Amino acid sequence: MKQEILRMLLDTRGNYLSGEEISRQLGVSRVAVWKQVNALRREGYRIESLPKQGYRIMELPDTLSKEEMAISLAGMGLVTEFAVFEQVTSTNELAKAMASQGSPEGTLVVADKQTKGRGRMGRSWESGTGKELCFSLVLRPEITPVQAPQLTLVAAVAVCRAIRILTELPVSIKWPNDILLDDRKVCGILTEMSSEMDRVNYIVLGIGVNVNQNAEDFPEGLRDRAISLAQAAGRLFRRIDLLQEIIKELAAVYRQYQNQGFAAVAESWIQMNCTLGREVFVSSLGEEYSGMAEGLDEQGRLLVRKSDGTLETLAAGDVSLGRSDKNKI
Amino acid sequence: MKQEILRMLLDTRGNYLSGEEISRQLGVSRVAVWKQVNALRREGYRIESLPKQGYRIMELPDTLSKEEMAISLAGMGLVTEFAVFEQVTSTNELAKAMASQGSPEGTLVVADKQTKGRGRMGRSWESGTGKELCFSLVLRPEITPVQAPQLTLVAAVAVCRAIRILTELPVSIKWPNDILLDDRKVCGILTEMSSEMDRVNYIVLGIGVNVNQNAEDFPEGLRDRAISLAQAAGRLFRRIDLLQEIIKELAAVYRQYQNQGFAAVAESWIQMNCTLGREVFVSSLGEEYSGMAEGLDEQGRLLVRKSDGTLETLAAGDVSLGRSDKNKI
Repeated sequence: MKQEILRMLLDTRGNYLSGEEISRQLGVSRVAVWKQVNALRREGYRIESLPKQGYRIMELPDTLSKEEMAISLAGMGLVTEFAVFEQVTSTNELAKAMASQGSPEGTLVVADKQTKGRGRMGRSWESGTGKELCFSLVLRPEITPVQAPQLTLVAAVAVCRAIRILTELPVSIKWPNDILLDDRKVCGILTEMSSEMDRVNYIVLGIGVNVNQNAEDFPEGLRDRAISLAQAAGRLFRRIDLLQEIIKELAAVYRQYQNQGFAAVAESWIQMNCTLGREVFVSSLGEEYSGMAEGLDEQGRLLVRKSDGTLETLAAGDVSLGRSDKNKI
Repeated sequence: MKQEILRMLLDTRGNYLSGEEISRQLGVSRVAVWKQVNALRREGYRIESLPKQGYRIMELPDTLSKEEMAISLAGMGLVTEFAVFEQVTSTNELAKAMASQGSPEGTLVVADKQTKGRGRMGRSWESGTGKELCFSLVLRPEITPVQAPQLTLVAAVAVCRAIRILTELPVSIKWPNDILLDDRKVCGILTEMSSEMDRVNYIVLGIGVNVNQNAEDFPEGLRDRAISLAQAAGRLFRRIDLLQEIIKELAAVYRQYQNQGFAAVAESWIQMNCTLGREVFVSSLGEEYSGMAEGLDEQGRLLVRKSDGTLETLAAGDVSLGRSDKNKI
C-alpha cells in the first residue's frame, strides 16, 4: 500500500491529493493512509498536509527506495527483477553470484554503498559515501566471448546519453568505457563475463557514477582526475532519476545492438567519444607506447597509429589521453 | 594413519609388510594397525595377511579414495588442494563456485558420478555410472580472454598424452578438444572462464573420460560415437591412475605453455591431432559448410579452406570429420 500511495503522490506532484480520495481508491481507512504517509516521511519524503486539501509531495530524498524503484523501472522492458541493498561488498560480485545461480537477463542489483567497489584490472572504486550510483545488471546475449567487449561500448553509449539527457553536461566517452567530463572521470564501467570458449553464459555490467560528491568526498589523489555530476552542474541529482534514465537508454541501445548489430552502436559511440583523433599513451600487457587513436575495429578494439607508422589493435590495456596544458589522466 | 598405512602397503606392493613393522614406524599398536587395514578392506582394497609375514596389497579397487589421491597427487606441483565427491551435479559448476569464492590455481574437484554432467554448448555429458573419470581444475593464468581457448588445447595435449602412456591406445585429438579413438569419443573437455574484458579471473578445465564403460553403459544413440578405454583395450583401468597421469602431463604442458608460449603447445597438438588434412563439416553460429582443415592460427583457431577457395578462421562451433567408409561423427 505504501508503494501505491507513493505512486499516487508522484502522479499528482505539485497538487494536493486528499486523504479521502486515497482511502477511497485503495479501499482502506484514512488512518491507514495517514500511517503510510508518515512511513514515507520517515524515509525522507517531505510530504505537506493541509486540512481540507490533503497531501502534497514537496521533496524527494536521494534514497534508493524499493517502492520508488519499482515504480520508476516498471515498463522499461529490460529489468526483469531487482534487489536494492544498503551496503554490499560489490554489486558485481553479488550479480555474478546471482547469475551463476540462474538469475535471468535483466537482473538488477543496486547498492547505496559499496565496501569493496571494484574497477577494471582489480583496482578499487571509491563508492562508500552514499553519493554514488552503483549498480550491476545481468545480461545473457547469445554471443561468443570475442564479441563480449562490444557490450562495454553498448553500456558506455547508454550511460553517456543518459547523463547528457538528465544533466545537460557535455560528457564524453574515453575508450573503452569511461565517461569523462573535462577529462575527469564521472563514471566507470566494469564488464565481466562467465563463458565457455565458444559461448557466453552471462555478462555482468557494473556501472558506477559519481553523482553528488563534493571534492572532499574523493580521496586526495583522485581529486584532479574525478568529478561528480553535482560538482559540474552546481546542483544535486537524485540517483534514482539517473538510474531510471540509464536503464531506459540501456534498454534502447541493447535492443539496437541485438537487432541491428554492433556497427550501429559503434556509430553512436564514435559520435560521443573523446579518444579518437587524439594522442594517447598506451600501457598494455607490459608494453608502453604512444600514438594517435585512429578508429575502432568491428569488435570495438581501438586502432592506434604508432609514431613509426605501424597500426596497433588494442583489445585490452590502459589508455591515457594526451593533453598539452594539464597532466595526462 | 589410514593414509600412512596405505602408502606403506603401496610402497611395498608385491611384498609382505609385517604388522609389527607398521606399528613400529607409526608408533601405534598392532591392534590399531589391524583396524585400519580392515577399514581399507571395506573400501575395496584386497589386502592379504599371512601369519609371520604380514600384510600384502593384492588388488586396488576403482574407488576414488581421498587417501590414495593425496598420495598419488603429492609432489605434482600443479594441484594445490582437492576435493573428492561421491556424486555432484557437475564438477565444473562446483569448481566455478569454489573459484569465485577465491579458491587458488590448482584446486581440483573430482567426482565418482555426475548427475548433470555437461558438455560444450549446454549439452549433457553422460557420467552417472561411476565408470567415468570426471574432474575439474581451476587455473588462474595471467592472460586475456582472447587467449583462453589456448588452454583448451593445452588440456587436450595433456590428456591425449596421458591416455597414450597409460593405455598405449592410439588416441588422437579432434579440434578443438575431443579425444578420439577410431573416430569415437573417449574424452571431452569443457573449458569455462570468468573474466573482465581484458583479463581472465579464472579458468575451469572440465575433463570427462570414458574409462570402464561397456557398450550397454552408453545410451543407445551414443554407442557408435562413444567408446571407453576399457572397450578399446580389452581390460579395466583404475581411474585414479589415469587421473594421476593426466595431472602429471597437465602440469608439464601448462608449465611449457607459461614458459615458452602457445606455439610449443600447438606443435604437440598438431602431432597428436586427427583433424588437419581432413575434410570437415562445420556448423558455426548458424552457418554450415564443409572444407579442408588446413591448420591452426596463433590463437588455436582452426583454419578451414572452403570449396570456393576462401579460408575461414574458426573460433567456435562444431566440426565433424568426414569419412569415406562410415557415417560422420
